[in-house]
Amino acid sequence: MNIKTNTNFGNIKETYLFSEIGSRVRAYEAANPDAKIIRMGIGDVTLPLPKIVVDAMVKACEEMGDQATFRGYPPEYGYGFLRDKISIHYANLGVTVDPESVFVSDGAKSDLGNFVDILGNNNVIIPDPVYPVYVDSNTMSGNNITFINGTRENGFLPMPSDLGDKDVNGAVIYLCSPNNPTGAVYDKKSLTSWVDFAVKTGSLIIYDSAYEAFISEDDIPHTIYEIPGAYECAVEICSFSKFAGFTGVRCGWTVVPDSLTVGGTHLAALWKRRQATKFNGVSYPVQRAAEAALTDEGIEACSKNIAYYKENAKLVTDLLDEKGIFYTGGKNSPYVWLECPEGYDSWAFFDKLLNEVQVVGTPGEGFGKGGDRYFRLTAFGSRENTIEAVERFKRTL
Amino acid sequence: MNIKTNTNFGNIKETYLFSEIGSRVRAYEAANPDAKIIRMGIGDVTLPLPKIVVDAMVKACEEMGDQATFRGYPPEYGYGFLRDKISIHYANLGVTVDPESVFVSDGAKSDLGNFVDILGNNNVIIPDPVYPVYVDSNTMSGNNITFINGTRENGFLPMPSDLGDKDVNGAVIYLCSPNNPTGAVYDKKSLTSWVDFAVKTGSLIIYDSAYEAFISEDDIPHTIYEIPGAYECAVEICSFSKFAGFTGVRCGWTVVPDSLTVGGTHLAALWKRRQATKFNGVSYPVQRAAEAALTDEGIEACSKNIAYYKENAKLVTDLLDEKGIFYTGGKNSPYVWLECPEGYDSWAFFDKLLNEVQVVGTPGEGFGKGGDRYFRLTAFGSRENTIEAVERFKRTL
Repeated sequence: MNIKTNTNFGNIKETYLFSEIGSRVRAYEAANPDAKIIRMGIGDVTLPLPKIVVDAMVKACEEMGDQATFRGYPPEYGYGFLRDKISIHYANLGVTVDPESVFVSDGAKSDLGNFVDILGNNNVIIPDPVYPVYVDSNTMSGNNITFINGTRENGFLPMPSDLGDKDVNGAVIYLCSPNNPTGAVYDKKSLTSWVDFAVKTGSLIIYDSAYEAFISEDDIPHTIYEIPGAYECAVEICSFSKFAGFTGVRCGWTVVPDSLTVGGTHLAALWKRRQATKFNGVSYPVQRAAEAALTDEGIEACSKNIAYYKENAKLVTDLLDEKGIFYTGGKNSPYVWLECPEGYDSWAFFDKLLNEVQVVGTPGEGFGKGGDRYFRLTAFGSRENTIEAVERFKRTL
Repeated sequence: MNIKTNTNFGNIKETYLFSEIGSRVRAYEAANPDAKIIRMGIGDVTLPLPKIVVDAMVKACEEMGDQATFRGYPPEYGYGFLRDKISIHYANLGVTVDPESVFVSDGAKSDLGNFVDILGNNNVIIPDPVYPVYVDSNTMSGNNITFINGTRENGFLPMPSDLGDKDVNGAVIYLCSPNNPTGAVYDKKSLTSWVDFAVKTGSLIIYDSAYEAFISEDDIPHTIYEIPGAYECAVEICSFSKFAGFTGVRCGWTVVPDSLTVGGTHLAALWKRRQATKFNGVSYPVQRAAEAALTDEGIEACSKNIAYYKENAKLVTDLLDEKGIFYTGGKNSPYVWLECPEGYDSWAFFDKLLNEVQVVGTPGEGFGKGGDRYFRLTAFGSRENTIEAVERFKRTL
């Protein structure tokens, strides 16, 4: 064909992270068929959905089979019943988010990728290491990306001061807290610095709060709207994936406050137009499931699952504390991000753990240059496997 | 804020179609509170999902509540069980589509909008009148659109010859058959002309076959891959929305044959990259529901619903035949596209039907300039209402 394709795709760094992990694990298994491998690499939940969520989803499916209760096209921005519940969720966090500012979607990843559609070619500021979707979706649109480095020194929480004298007027800034992959969290003071910086420079913050439910320490914002000025500079993208175990159910949302304007144009109006054109709403049973997860009973059940994962994380961080190994995360996050031992880069450490104790984690290099001497372990496994992994770590760390 | 937004959004024609219809209907209702209005305007299904589909979806929901059967992130391109079933669906239509070429999504609208992401700035050829998503999603990307006009003369089936001497080398061509809104269908010969033209000019056809299940006449292709050469020039986007009544369930798919290449780059590789970056797969219960719809029992149940709608359409077209009113559609489509009476444009005819017989349809002007003297009626209502509407039409047409 003679058509033109999007040449920006040629600039996306090919990632072989999970395929490379897969092939190294398969090779090990082939050579060691009796080995019991423990997987602590994947950021996916493992506990089943709470009963109240399943019941709501089943009831909605049955409604779809009955003439009297059948529903066709859902509203493109989400059913009122779910937008209202998300608004109440924010009220419970102490902030005001109007239901009309909540846009329900099939997941945070879709919104993070698609939001780029409504923006022009801006300077984009992205932390390194980071969830690769921010980088790849901006690369696809040909945007100029400035990385800000997470390091041991800044606790993997880059601050505006890490930008030095780079031009950041009217930039798009991605922040993720609790962070994937580092588990690091911005406290109120540091997030306030970012909001102040964004307001001062006329920048937009795209705030990924997908892991919000794992926050338990005081003074850590659950939403960026806890910070004064955020309604004037920040979009927040969140998800039911980690809070309610919806990775396989698919539901998330984006908050676009009405106060976000560029030269008189409401960002919300552009997002509405984008979604009404290229999206047709979320499955009705999925929205009922999400609504159930946000009832009092649903929140209680989901919180129990979160507590289970966090107890797993604590088993890992207790050992790292004992061994004096530097790490971030684990306290307000399902992720533990640890420094590799002296002399090991992240892939060498991957091989060491696989070969010596048959534990699979994720080499930090897969999340950016800043991760090449770090390693991500996740707390989404079973208690039994996590205990066993920690016992094995004792032998090798 | 000082960020740049996507200025192409300013070029999208604001559509007030459905809001304008809504406000005219509300005004009529307010003035005539006892009127029984029949709605034949909306392209949404109304019959409930078949039992086999509901049962499969319920079972999948229950699996998600059980530790032994819980599933996390779905594969980004769809579960193998569903890609296989869609491949078999094509085999039943007499063509070969490899499961690996099938990409499952949350609906045809998403795919139609998002596919633009992987293309560069090409000349885009779009029929007029047409489903507005093609125009709007290309306008958002700043693409140059050439319209080809559907007219009474060409039966609302524009052909390559309608392009005249316009430059169409390496174009992206949107075709929709059975067409929304006109219900017109390309037969094998005319679709062959398009495929030959695309191959000759190095163009890409984006073929929207969402209404395929309504085809019952011979010699009408159910898929573009029935046409020799299509594997070298065409992507096909289809949906469970109309076939299985999934407008509220949300599932569709796109076929990107491996033989589609541009300068050595596989279009499928770009689409995979786009979907893996900006999409996280379709809800597991939804995919199980879609799988059930494609079983023998599912197809039989869905076909009964299609037959019901088609019988509604026939009631309308029988009357139009009797009255000698020109129309397209109705035979292989849930849509009937009729010419407004002499002296009426599509909005004047809308008012006439609303005021005289209390039937609501869709003014053709909402689908493009070429629709300004045409009117769309849909067959998705109940039998009772359709019979009643036809009785009323007899009084006014």
